[in-house]
Amino acid sequence: MESKVVLYRDVPVQELGGGVTRRVLAYLPGEMVVEVRFAPGAQGAAHSHPHTQCTYVVHGEFAFTIGSETFIVHSGDTLAFAPNETHGCVCDGGGVLIDVFTPMREDFI
Amino acid sequence: MESKVVLYRDVPVQELGGGVTRRVLAYLPGEMVVEVRFAPGAQGAAHSHPHTQCTYVVHGEFAFTIGSETFIVHSGDTLAFAPNETHGCVCDGGGVLIDVFTPMREDFI
Repeated sequence: MESKVVLYRDVPVQELGGGVTRRVLAYLPGEMVVEVRFAPGAQGAAHSHPHTQCTYVVHGEFAFTIGSETFIVHSGDTLAFAPNETHGCVCDGGGVLIDVFTPMREDFI
Repeated sequence: MESKVVLYRDVPVQELGGGVTRRVLAYLPGEMVVEVRFAPGAQGAAHSHPHTQCTYVVHGEFAFTIGSETFIVHSGDTLAFAPNETHGCVCDGGGVLIDVFTPMREDFI
């Protein structure tokens, strides 16, 4: 296991459809950083996974659903999703999130 | 263990001295998100810890030292520090980092 420096300009973009793109940034086995960009009106469909996830709002306004509750968040706000918690979001105006997963998402690489 | 939403405006600031401030954002036992702000010329002294750490550059230019190597990073760039890897930074122009620790930093709360 080795430390890493990942320059944004070197990271390939993954088109997820529906106006959403993903970039897998720095990671180690225990932790992975992922940037997700949303075009205006794009959504992250509700889903769950066994990884702990924290999300940092870089910019934009997002309506996040956690279980049956909805929360409006903006730049600088953060969320923590317990393992297997169902979560999703809608981004009416477009925006950028940083998602961090523990352990890393093997399915993203 | 429960999911959480942490609004930036509700987070207390910790003054670390030397032009550096810390805000502990969302966390769960397995993962903690921390914002660190650097005034122009501020430094993060070289240190190490057993936690895996990833760092996302929100804005600013940082000179990071990992072991004996130095790397210049900017907005959108990321770093991953293996457990117990010595790392530090200098931020000549001022800037903001998001540090993510696995597991959470018990010593920060």
